[in-house]
Amino acid sequence: MKTLQDYIDKLNALNFKDMYNGDFFLTWEKTDEELEAVFTVADALRFMRENNISTKVFESGLGISLFRDNSTRTRFSFASACNLLGLEVQDLDEGKSQIAHGETVRETANMISFMADVIGIRDDMYIGKGNKYMHDVVDAVTEGNKAGILEQKPTLVNLQCDIDHPTQCMADMLHIIHEFGGVENLKGKKLAMTWAYSPSYGKPLSVPQGVIGLMTRFGMDVVLAHPEGYEVMPEVEEVAKKNAAASGGSYRRVNSMEEAFKDADIVYPKSWAPFAAMEKRTDLYGNGDFDGIKALEKELLAQNAQHKDWACTEELMKTTKDGKALYLHCLPADITGVSCETGEVDASVFDRYRDPLYKEASYKPYIIAAMIFLAKFQNPQEILKKLEERNTPRILK
Amino acid sequence: MKTLQDYIDKLNALNFKDMYNGDFFLTWEKTDEELEAVFTVADALRFMRENNISTKVFESGLGISLFRDNSTRTRFSFASACNLLGLEVQDLDEGKSQIAHGETVRETANMISFMADVIGIRDDMYIGKGNKYMHDVVDAVTEGNKAGILEQKPTLVNLQCDIDHPTQCMADMLHIIHEFGGVENLKGKKLAMTWAYSPSYGKPLSVPQGVIGLMTRFGMDVVLAHPEGYEVMPEVEEVAKKNAAASGGSYRRVNSMEEAFKDADIVYPKSWAPFAAMEKRTDLYGNGDFDGIKALEKELLAQNAQHKDWACTEELMKTTKDGKALYLHCLPADITGVSCETGEVDASVFDRYRDPLYKEASYKPYIIAAMIFLAKFQNPQEILKKLEERNTPRILK
Amino acid sequence: MKTLQDYIDKLNALNFKDMYNGDFFLTWEKTDEELEAVFTVADALRFMRENNISTKVFESGLGISLFRDNSTRTRFSFASACNLLGLEVQDLDEGKSQIAHGETVRETANMISFMADVIGIRDDMYIGKGNKYMHDVVDAVTEGNKAGILEQKPTLVNLQCDIDHPTQCMADMLHIIHEFGGVENLKGKKLAMTWAYSPSYGKPLSVPQGVIGLMTRFGMDVVLAHPEGYEVMPEVEEVAKKNAAASGGSYRRVNSMEEAFKDADIVYPKSWAPFAAMEKRTDLYGNGDFDGIKALEKELLAQNAQHKDWACTEELMKTTKDGKALYLHCLPADITGVSCETGEVDASVFDRYRDPLYKEASYKPYIIAAMIFLAKFQNPQEILKKLEERNTPRILK
Repeated sequence: MKTLQDYIDKLNALNFKDMYNGDFFLTWEKTDEELEAVFTVADALRFMRENNISTKVFESGLGISLFRDNSTRTRFSFASACNLLGLEVQDLDEGKSQIAHGETVRETANMISFMADVIGIRDDMYIGKGNKYMHDVVDAVTEGNKAGILEQKPTLVNLQCDIDHPTQCMADMLHIIHEFGGVENLKGKKLAMTWAYSPSYGKPLSVPQGVIGLMTRFGMDVVLAHPEGYEVMPEVEEVAKKNAAASGGSYRRVNSMEEAFKDADIVYPKSWAPFAAMEKRTDLYGNGDFDGIKALEKELLAQNAQHKDWACTEELMKTTKDGKALYLHCLPADITGVSCETGEVDASVFDRYRDPLYKEASYKPYIIAAMIFLAKFQNPQEILKKLEERNTPRILK
Repeated sequence: MKTLQDYIDKLNALNFKDMYNGDFFLTWEKTDEELEAVFTVADALRFMRENNISTKVFESGLGISLFRDNSTRTRFSFASACNLLGLEVQDLDEGKSQIAHGETVRETANMISFMADVIGIRDDMYIGKGNKYMHDVVDAVTEGNKAGILEQKPTLVNLQCDIDHPTQCMADMLHIIHEFGGVENLKGKKLAMTWAYSPSYGKPLSVPQGVIGLMTRFGMDVVLAHPEGYEVMPEVEEVAKKNAAASGGSYRRVNSMEEAFKDADIVYPKSWAPFAAMEKRTDLYGNGDFDGIKALEKELLAQNAQHKDWACTEELMKTTKDGKALYLHCLPADITGVSCETGEVDASVFDRYRDPLYKEASYKPYIIAAMIFLAKFQNPQEILKKLEERNTPRILK
Repeated sequence: MKTLQDYIDKLNALNFKDMYNGDFFLTWEKTDEELEAVFTVADALRFMRENNISTKVFESGLGISLFRDNSTRTRFSFASACNLLGLEVQDLDEGKSQIAHGETVRETANMISFMADVIGIRDDMYIGKGNKYMHDVVDAVTEGNKAGILEQKPTLVNLQCDIDHPTQCMADMLHIIHEFGGVENLKGKKLAMTWAYSPSYGKPLSVPQGVIGLMTRFGMDVVLAHPEGYEVMPEVEEVAKKNAAASGGSYRRVNSMEEAFKDADIVYPKSWAPFAAMEKRTDLYGNGDFDGIKALEKELLAQNAQHKDWACTEELMKTTKDGKALYLHCLPADITGVSCETGEVDASVFDRYRDPLYKEASYKPYIIAAMIFLAKFQNPQEILKKLEERNTPRILK
């Protein structure tokens, strides 16, 4: 695309009216056109920033972040997205706050939202909890808005839950689209989402689940590979199957990394914890059974160690399409000989893909900003046009 | 009110010229007209925000926050108020800072204030300390400004001290004014500020003190109720008595929650620690007597436990005016069966008043913003008018 | 200077074109004219702020801060500088982040920089590490920018490294320039940078090194005084010698505070740790030798205690030029009888210089802002002119 009008024209052809005043929980709750709208607005915002056109649409307003897990990439992506649109990030650091024992989500959600336009939450640790918590927050602020407590309903952006990691997977996908020169070139491409060994245990399932839940929508042949016992949520596999059928692609699961990599156009080798074990851990935490948790950790690490051969090696990369599959990772990766003795990927493979990997990550702020943009404006095309006409430079010139 | 001009007209009739370049420590250091100016500007700012008119008056500038106690509500209210006016919050986290042992307040205050327009402080833990500290800060930055070190004198907003909690009580009061349809309807209304049992001890006195120090100024019949031994600062009771006499209302203290609730129009049941005990605790901390502190805590919890019958029950609510008194709380409340076994309020009472309680809290950012606004502009009416004429949308449209 | 044009005229006479898109590591890597450009832009920005002209040149963008040591003054100075120009500070708190063991600097630097215009780093604890780390960050983001990952190359501002503390020393110097009425009045003035006793050990060397590396460039007679064993980095002394020769001043090292103070026009008495000991400590940390570190600490404290007579007393101050040398300190100072029993300076001396000391500190935000300004604009004169013509008030009026 060469002009902003191209992006606007593309949006004009799409139906995404239900995104207005909405939230972003799971990619498979959105229509294909809605996802395309997110990609298009993300590209438009990047285009404008590259051309030094300010996309500040808020004169004031807060973007609340709540991270229930350490984070660098997503934290900075959220901060960047808010800043790009004019929102100031205010972090709800539960350690510094006075959230009373037994205080309802409804109360906290309203108390922090008087001037909040966005709430971004990362809550991925406990199966059955994270996504539910986000819904509770949205229900609370929706009620608060209706009751006249909040002048606006903040939009929720899922920054990673127990089920999906939509901002990550949408950024991954936008990277794929750009690398392959457009969505129209993806039909029949083979994508391998595979488990890989890592010396740490308990990595979230949201990335593999998000990937098979999203990337089956573009006519690709998506293969999920993992050792037996590393199953993901069955509901998400059902989503993947339906998506594949609808998009003219395919989805299947195998227990061999070799099979998945064979002739793959795109590979995404990454460690995760077995769904059933994570469910068990959630229960153990719920019961305060710390001995049980320790025993489970030991068991999981031992189980992982049986699969050290699941690694993205140079040999394996050679078996992909022309030996040049696009290598993806949400980062940070466990790199053999760099961040650990034996890890997910050979150092030489990782090094070769460093620039594309960072480029992949660079889409996340724009994806988040696009999700906010589409929730806040009924007619985003008009707003984009106004921003172009206003032509305020991002950096004075 | 229907137009911004109505608020401006109201301000035109008030004398608040001494607020310019001033600070906000205690409500009873302000005249009635000054308090009315705060309410009016708060309402005007809310009106503008509701009508999507930006009230950003600062292009740059910092709002410094210093919280010496955990906080969610006040922290987010301060952040919201600063953001609404265009200031960026910078938190002075004493843990992360390099404040030297023995470093003077004067030094710290100046070092953080080079570009600070506001300093908000919460320091409510130690009797005789918090308010004094705030004055020390103001003295320091006033000197710094005079000496040409600071280009501006930051205004201090008391976000809770050992004596008063002005932003909370002013928000409570603005809520009352709106619920009763105007200050003119408050004459003769009965307000019960009463102690209530909580399983935690050592809750600050600033709310009950702030309430009797402020709400006696509107012609209401204010009753302070608590078990013997839970006295508040005598100086503040003196203030309450004088206020009541001047406003044509009344102030009295009783040792019966029933008596206070009887026919009350407004009830504010809330736990606090005895003033004398808090004074003792301050001394124990000063002497580093941690055994003494532990003994005192035990003693206070035992004392509290003798008064579990001091609770805002459904039965008690029925005895209020038409059984429908306006229930107030600064939040978070200790709710029986929700946040604790036995607490300040029945769950069903709390639930019924949830929306008004949250509405009450929603005024705090506007009260804080109004305090800043009145300290920064010699002619706030003119500035409000300019903002209306400038008509920059808060969210682009 | 009376008008902004005076500053612009001054800039027009200077060559600083290499600062565009550059970084600020060490003062002695910059030419005299480049340093003068920093002072001039700092003064111009202060002039504009004092005249209520907004200097907001960024509509959006982040200023990333990374503090590997506690900080109040520098933290707030960086936040103030960013805010003054329109950047929002986002702190990279390594405790809250997910920086993987073995993760490359290159990765972290890129991941946080998608929308970063500035990165400010304080990393002064380990000899041979801090400055190197900053270069690694700059190399990484430069590559990232070239590879199309980052739309801009963030500029690095050294907020204190193991070698230099350029923002501090430039602020100190600008204070000197103003106190003496211009750079042209400094020729032949005597400046004493001297060690002073403090009960704490291990204070960074960056200030004395920064001072002798910078202040030898203005034709002054610079004397470094310290007890034997408290040597600074020899490379920096070489820089000081060359500077002095080039500027027509002098540099020498003595082991007597009395000799240094004698007839001095400016004194900077301050504790620091011996360079060799800090190097040893760095190695001990590297080897995880915590017993060795403890032993070293004990040894250093004992060594310090032998030099309690190295203090800036009233007696010593009397020996300076007219008994009225300008007393400098980067703060916080160890004040005898105030912050410690025996410290760097007499309480009465410190008190007498309080206002000038705070004024000295007040230049730091402007110095930082000027460094950013000169890195971001090819023609800063034109931008200053535009800001004046735009004439947006910092506070609405």
